[in-house]
Amino acid sequence: MISKKMKRLVENSSIIRAMFEEGTRLSEIYGEENVFDFSIGNPNVKPPEDVKKAIIDILSEEEPNLIHGYMNNSGYEDVREQIANYITKKDGVKLTANNIVMTCGAAGGLNIILKSLLNPEDEVITFSPFFGEYANYVDNFYGKLVVVKSQDGTFQPDINALEEGINERTKAIIINSPNNPTGVIYSETTIKNIAKVLEKKQKEYGTSIFLISDEPYREIVYDDIEVPVILKVYKNSFIGYSYSKSLSLPGERIGYIAVNGEMDNFEDVIASLNVANRILGFVNAPSLFQRVVGRTLGAEVDVNIYKKNRDLLYNHLISIGFECIKPEGAFYLFPKTLIEDDKKFAQIAKKYNILLVPGTAFGSPGYCRLSYCIGYDKIEKSLEAFTKLAKDCRNL
Amino acid sequence: MISKKMKRLVENSSIIRAMFEEGTRLSEIYGEENVFDFSIGNPNVKPPEDVKKAIIDILSEEEPNLIHGYMNNSGYEDVREQIANYITKKDGVKLTANNIVMTCGAAGGLNIILKSLLNPEDEVITFSPFFGEYANYVDNFYGKLVVVKSQDGTFQPDINALEEGINERTKAIIINSPNNPTGVIYSETTIKNIAKVLEKKQKEYGTSIFLISDEPYREIVYDDIEVPVILKVYKNSFIGYSYSKSLSLPGERIGYIAVNGEMDNFEDVIASLNVANRILGFVNAPSLFQRVVGRTLGAEVDVNIYKKNRDLLYNHLISIGFECIKPEGAFYLFPKTLIEDDKKFAQIAKKYNILLVPGTAFGSPGYCRLSYCIGYDKIEKSLEAFTKLAKDCRNL
Repeated sequence: MISKKMKRLVENSSIIRAMFEEGTRLSEIYGEENVFDFSIGNPNVKPPEDVKKAIIDILSEEEPNLIHGYMNNSGYEDVREQIANYITKKDGVKLTANNIVMTCGAAGGLNIILKSLLNPEDEVITFSPFFGEYANYVDNFYGKLVVVKSQDGTFQPDINALEEGINERTKAIIINSPNNPTGVIYSETTIKNIAKVLEKKQKEYGTSIFLISDEPYREIVYDDIEVPVILKVYKNSFIGYSYSKSLSLPGERIGYIAVNGEMDNFEDVIASLNVANRILGFVNAPSLFQRVVGRTLGAEVDVNIYKKNRDLLYNHLISIGFECIKPEGAFYLFPKTLIEDDKKFAQIAKKYNILLVPGTAFGSPGYCRLSYCIGYDKIEKSLEAFTKLAKDCRNL
Repeated sequence: MISKKMKRLVENSSIIRAMFEEGTRLSEIYGEENVFDFSIGNPNVKPPEDVKKAIIDILSEEEPNLIHGYMNNSGYEDVREQIANYITKKDGVKLTANNIVMTCGAAGGLNIILKSLLNPEDEVITFSPFFGEYANYVDNFYGKLVVVKSQDGTFQPDINALEEGINERTKAIIINSPNNPTGVIYSETTIKNIAKVLEKKQKEYGTSIFLISDEPYREIVYDDIEVPVILKVYKNSFIGYSYSKSLSLPGERIGYIAVNGEMDNFEDVIASLNVANRILGFVNAPSLFQRVVGRTLGAEVDVNIYKKNRDLLYNHLISIGFECIKPEGAFYLFPKTLIEDDKKFAQIAKKYNILLVPGTAFGSPGYCRLSYCIGYDKIEKSLEAFTKLAKDCRNL
């Protein structure tokens, strides 16, 4: 009775639901403190104090019908200007309020970008491993997701594979750096090479190919690594940003799109994002939290907490024989599984009360994703379980 | 470069934008206090004090990562249960948390319902005059909106026309009561007759036909009129609800869907709404405001303010010769225009600094919509302008 598309999706998602239920079941048997749930990217670090202060200040200083009312579908003009000025200053790209559209997180942002760009059968390229939702977002508008492999060993996009993947139907490329699930940050060279290929192919086909940079982890970066600024490198570029991780506000659904001012048909694109925000039912990004992020620009969660988690888990996994890139950002490890079959590996891990996501969910079998945005104590406690898991796999 | 669908929508919406710009232009010339903007449904009545109190209580009593974190895509279990219990008690329909999906307002709710139900080319019926966004929501999923006329004089749906409009591709009916733009409330008889026709047609075609009741104005009701409870009358029914009007929180994007527990394929539908919420990019309804509405159930804006506005404007319009149904709910008047061409009428109204929306935008030429959710003083001041407008039209 539900649509054919949704029927298929519901069947697939019930596999993931089954996994969550497994977590609940294990918690009931062994106690929540003895279950090591590395499966979900729900930040455990507290939002900065500025957030609470901003909410209370706004409630006492501003008019309730302004705080909670409708505004332009693109968001409050003053907030968009504050964000534009912040980016201009921080990243050295000249933006104004006209370049910014406030969105319901990065997920809302990506959907209105794709709604704006895609005709049915248009192709969108991304690099595996990739955040599985991209496939759904593209399918929402009857587009086709084309997955191109990253380079083995580095998880940097394979530029030759990208070039081969582009054709006259290619409308956009989605990149995600710092990356979910690998934690890798795309280098300046990578970004420049992607831009070069896109420019070449735009000329070859006489089309516009848009670069969509999904950046919810932009501030979750370790060891003073710089995340390259996409808007400086490629004209037809969007940034999809979310405050979910930088302010630990994933449930509030607040983010923005920054649109390159030199984009082809800039005015049409902006107008379209505005209309798409409205007609997809977002209408506008939640109003109070628009005002909150406008007042807390530059505030960030304590990234050191995630860094300590990373170091603890990474060092242990390496010491017991896992192969894994040391992530420079985000809060995920993406090690090779100790046996080839990643789904079976996830099953075995459950014996030790470890919950993780098989790499297959990200288009990369033979790997698994571990979200380390959980308590340090919990990770400490889990190390022994990982050791047992490794031993078990070696004896198979 | 943007998609063909969006190109068309952007061109249409720029006509509406031009109207807003006209408002700004008039304000600059004559002063904002001398421009009578009846074009937008942005509530001017303050949210109840309970809302502010609830926000502050939540911030001081609950854990920040719980307040602002991810939860099930359908929303917080405890909030859904509170809402279910509230509806059960108020309306006498037995609901549990399983019947409720928290949404980004009613617009988000309608979109995830339609995403869940529609295959391309499926038909959705609504009654004119209708909220123009329904056409976009249905088109988002490649469905086809079929508009059936209401009865002249009452704006109650024409049941015979409904019966004729249904065929084997009819997947859903959208109704909206209290109605935007007419302010009419569908009677118990109307609802029962709609249900009868749908049941008959379901049998005839061996299909499920879903009734989607869009109810953002449920609490904006005058003169002790009762709004019939859809869930009591028809099994395959959804309520799409929003707190935008009852709590004056339109910018916060908070509402819910209530799903009839006896619906065909209930489990699949619920699972699908959950997945659709996620993949369309809503992910979940904004988290803090989920908790706020859970704590403020039963709180309402002061509807008397709207009632006074209605009486003032309605009585004046009637006294100067307008034909108009006296609205029983919502905050709109939908009079016949004094000349046949409603677009031309809107142009003439502008001469007197009156901004209104031509009925054509709602599928009903020859009428216009006046939103009276503005200050009483402003309405008082506008009456003379309406008198001049009426005189002008009579002399044409």
